[in-house]
Amino acid sequence: MMRFVRRILIGKPLHNQEIHNEKLPKWKALSIFSSDALSSVAYGPEQIMLMLTLPGMLAYGYLAPISLAILALLAIVTISYVQVAKVNPGGGGSYSVAITNLGEMPALTAAAALFADYTLTVAVSVSAGTAAIISAFPHFAQHEVAMDLIILFGVLMLVNLRGIRESSTAFVFPTYGFILGIIALIGTGIYQALTNQAPIFPPESLVKQMDWTILVLVLRAFANGCSSMTGLEAISNGVPMFRSPGARNATITTYWMSGILGIMFIGTSFLTMHFHILPLHDITALSQIAELTFGRGWAYYYIQITTMLVLYLAANTSFNGLPLLLSILARDGYMPRYLGVRGERLNFSNGIVLLSIVAGILILIYQGNTEHLISLYAIGVFLSFTIAQIGMVVHWRKERTMGWRLRATVNTIGATVTGIVVLIIAITKFFYGAWLVLVFIPIMICIFKKIRSHYNDMAEQLHLPLEDFNPNIKANLKTGRNVVIVPIATPTSVVAETLKYAKSISDDVVALHIATDEEIGRKVEEKWRGWNPGIELVTVYSPYRLVIQPILDYIINLEHQKNPEDYITILIPEFQTKKWWHRLLHNQTGWILRTLLILRENVIVTTIPFHLQK
Amino acid sequence: MMRFVRRILIGKPLHNQEIHNEKLPKWKALSIFSSDALSSVAYGPEQIMLMLTLPGMLAYGYLAPISLAILALLAIVTISYVQVAKVNPGGGGSYSVAITNLGEMPALTAAAALFADYTLTVAVSVSAGTAAIISAFPHFAQHEVAMDLIILFGVLMLVNLRGIRESSTAFVFPTYGFILGIIALIGTGIYQALTNQAPIFPPESLVKQMDWTILVLVLRAFANGCSSMTGLEAISNGVPMFRSPGARNATITTYWMSGILGIMFIGTSFLTMHFHILPLHDITALSQIAELTFGRGWAYYYIQITTMLVLYLAANTSFNGLPLLLSILARDGYMPRYLGVRGERLNFSNGIVLLSIVAGILILIYQGNTEHLISLYAIGVFLSFTIAQIGMVVHWRKERTMGWRLRATVNTIGATVTGIVVLIIAITKFFYGAWLVLVFIPIMICIFKKIRSHYNDMAEQLHLPLEDFNPNIKANLKTGRNVVIVPIATPTSVVAETLKYAKSISDDVVALHIATDEEIGRKVEEKWRGWNPGIELVTVYSPYRLVIQPILDYIINLEHQKNPEDYITILIPEFQTKKWWHRLLHNQTGWILRTLLILRENVIVTTIPFHLQK
Repeated sequence: MMRFVRRILIGKPLHNQEIHNEKLPKWKALSIFSSDALSSVAYGPEQIMLMLTLPGMLAYGYLAPISLAILALLAIVTISYVQVAKVNPGGGGSYSVAITNLGEMPALTAAAALFADYTLTVAVSVSAGTAAIISAFPHFAQHEVAMDLIILFGVLMLVNLRGIRESSTAFVFPTYGFILGIIALIGTGIYQALTNQAPIFPPESLVKQMDWTILVLVLRAFANGCSSMTGLEAISNGVPMFRSPGARNATITTYWMSGILGIMFIGTSFLTMHFHILPLHDITALSQIAELTFGRGWAYYYIQITTMLVLYLAANTSFNGLPLLLSILARDGYMPRYLGVRGERLNFSNGIVLLSIVAGILILIYQGNTEHLISLYAIGVFLSFTIAQIGMVVHWRKERTMGWRLRATVNTIGATVTGIVVLIIAITKFFYGAWLVLVFIPIMICIFKKIRSHYNDMAEQLHLPLEDFNPNIKANLKTGRNVVIVPIATPTSVVAETLKYAKSISDDVVALHIATDEEIGRKVEEKWRGWNPGIELVTVYSPYRLVIQPILDYIINLEHQKNPEDYITILIPEFQTKKWWHRLLHNQTGWILRTLLILRENVIVTTIPFHLQK
Repeated sequence: MMRFVRRILIGKPLHNQEIHNEKLPKWKALSIFSSDALSSVAYGPEQIMLMLTLPGMLAYGYLAPISLAILALLAIVTISYVQVAKVNPGGGGSYSVAITNLGEMPALTAAAALFADYTLTVAVSVSAGTAAIISAFPHFAQHEVAMDLIILFGVLMLVNLRGIRESSTAFVFPTYGFILGIIALIGTGIYQALTNQAPIFPPESLVKQMDWTILVLVLRAFANGCSSMTGLEAISNGVPMFRSPGARNATITTYWMSGILGIMFIGTSFLTMHFHILPLHDITALSQIAELTFGRGWAYYYIQITTMLVLYLAANTSFNGLPLLLSILARDGYMPRYLGVRGERLNFSNGIVLLSIVAGILILIYQGNTEHLISLYAIGVFLSFTIAQIGMVVHWRKERTMGWRLRATVNTIGATVTGIVVLIIAITKFFYGAWLVLVFIPIMICIFKKIRSHYNDMAEQLHLPLEDFNPNIKANLKTGRNVVIVPIATPTSVVAETLKYAKSISDDVVALHIATDEEIGRKVEEKWRGWNPGIELVTVYSPYRLVIQPILDYIINLEHQKNPEDYITILIPEFQTKKWWHRLLHNQTGWILRTLLILRENVIVTTIPFHLQK
């Protein structure tokens, strides 16, 4: 039954050999990996504007320079990142670069930053997607969080559990549909602006003013705008998923993605200024632009629906990125091993489920309010950018391959610029949520290191020195006696079954009766003699009516007498009841003994299942 | 540590032989068993008045006849119940009488009614005690429910877990202090009434009027007043706790209790009419009487505080009654066995905890609002009275001892009167909560019968036909082969330890490796050959990367080949980690296998604890 539901939802298991079929061609990879970066035009310009239109401010005119600065930043980061993809065909992006070139601490910092980035991306993108559709259909507003969670668990998690290839096919249309829609929107908008009677930029959208307060706001606006660049790292983290030659295909895809992103970002910024868009509650800036350009017709709804879809896809980018990163971390011993195991559909299913749960918790805490989350997440992205660039500089200086000086210069510029961005974001947004990320990263690093040290300890303790073992097994695996203790209440058919098994595993069997009452004790002894199963019955009188304690005392006493290599096995019959509530009618002695004895060396507790027929 | 806290709170364990020290002398027993009945004067007359002073009604004058009717009822029930105590020195009251004389169904009805009665008594008395103290100190009003729960769990449950004798000593003073206070109040009040200028009964307190609506209200008032009689059955249920001769001592104590109750009830009713008391929110009727009689001096506060204490004690009556009843039900197989086991302090500690939890839930649901609860509980009391009386009639007709006709007549009158009271309460209060009790009783009966039938099934299945067993044990307990399977990932020191144990319990050991990858499988086989532990390694290739399923398949396949009496034992090493969270870093294969295999006959899963040192 369970298995049937699983098949329907997730599909049939995939054979190990099917892994090669899961590689992606460029045009599909673009749609999978770029949705995060591209979709940020749905909220990036709006986030800049939000800072420049605070009441009492006259700074709207800085939108243009900030947008251009971000465009330049995009170009620098793109060129630097192309080099990351080339050097690390194994995927893992910043973390891989840092672990080979910079050592453990920078690598773990990058990993923690990426972890924060990916989970926040899912939460932000899902919320923003829902916000897009609520702009068009405002009566859904009250179900916002519920819609977010349905999309997260019901769609994204399930689709990703099914596996990569199928998800890419399903996701090609929305990405290209969105690109087409936004390009058409920009084209129409620019055409209208140029041919219209109205001025291309209304004067109120060009107001600039400068003092210290406004400088801070402009920097915050820039920091907000940098959120548009999140997702650029997705391709360099996902190189192994490209068809070979992986690195080359990834490079070409990255250029395409950045080009499209640049055009769309600068185009929407232009239209924002042209229409002098101001932030409205429950209606996104992109929705306002689309309505002003196309009117509220089918073109408007097309933009809103593709925006929603591409934002949901953007969340999907993290589903491709984080599980892969976690599997690399797990392979290196910084995350639990099972995050590195491929599930029945050949994907890292445990990582997919983990990501969904963390993002779901974020959405619930912030009640689907995107703004709060956006301020949290650009910092993680740029921190990992910076670390990757520094790592690349070190890499070039070690390798000194042809043209290394030029490449190193490119990455030095990248590292410097992104490093400055990290500082700007960290300082201007510290009290608006960035502190949370700055607290989260050291905590994650600490967790990574603790896990690694546990696995190291484990490996040391589990080490089996093969050379110490004499091939003559009899000497090596020779064991001591095995004293089997069967606690009994009174002779029953269950006791008989248990004693049978006891006899089969040892010749040293003792039946132990704890008598809470002298009279009962005598009766049980009498019955035992009548039965005469050939096994010694030891009766312990417990005047304080305790049952567990005398059994423990008996075992501890036996432990003192035995040789270190001897075993003590306690056999406890356990009833398997037909109905769950029948279980409440039996005492849980077996379970309690197991829990108490599990800490003792060479004491083994075995429960013998006995199946009640009714 | 746990044990130390336990010692402080509950005291040291008591030896089986100390049970005889726990018997009570009459004067102590009176204070323990009578607090329930006596304390009801704190709310009984008020509950009658409540119905007679509804807006638009002119029926206050019926207070006197209703009080007299209840006094008569009290006399009848007392005389009948003395006979119950005599005939059933084993305690258990209505249930015991019914099970010996009337059969299962009436007995279980009585048990269910008593169960409802006892738990409601605790909830009502605790709430009423808090209400008494809030009348005197109104600023506690907002903490009412919290105070109720502290008294319930922090005082009543703990004191009762410590044991009977100590509780009785602690409880003697409040009961006698309350009796003294109320008698003094009544005496002073009557003296003032007789010597005063004012009329003994102000005319407005004598108003009577009659129509059908008022008849119903008078009957409801009578039903409410019957709540004063709850607790009368406590002594007959607790006969075994009296010093011998138990039955005689119980009888004398019952007469004393009823006498005192009668005087106090009629006295407070008199004063209620004399002062023409009307119900006020947050100030109890008894508090009004005390204030009008004594003024707001020390005498007033004495009355309020002893009232509070005796009401809390009244809750304690149930703590003496219900656990004993549950233990008798458990002995008869109608309740889980562990309710019949005496705890380390020789009391029925599981029953005490169960009662506290149920009463706590009732207080939380009703937010400490006594009125709602009172309307629920008289019906259970009178139903059990009626069943006990009918049982006694049957008893006398069977026994025909000297004077049986007279005794049977007494009980027949008792049964008839209490039966009529049950009908009056059930009909007039049906929509005010009585329906809940009438639904609860059949559900409880059903639970009782289900439990009994499960224990019967168990006994049948566990039956060991001693005569079938040949004294020559070798033949009887002879067993088949025991194939031991040890699932392994790779040879480690843990595997070596597990194989040692495996060798000690069987010569038939197989190591089973599930290879999720062909290459890994080959490596493990190679390592195994290098180690050469003299045990066969079976490698199963699992191309879909499942681990549990291939193990299950292997076991099921083995099951088909083996003889029915052969065993299959699966040994699974289980890591005992030093820190709880380390557990999250290991997979739970052992636990999953145990859960899946526990349903198979003759397949035994044993986990071998392996202790990580760091």
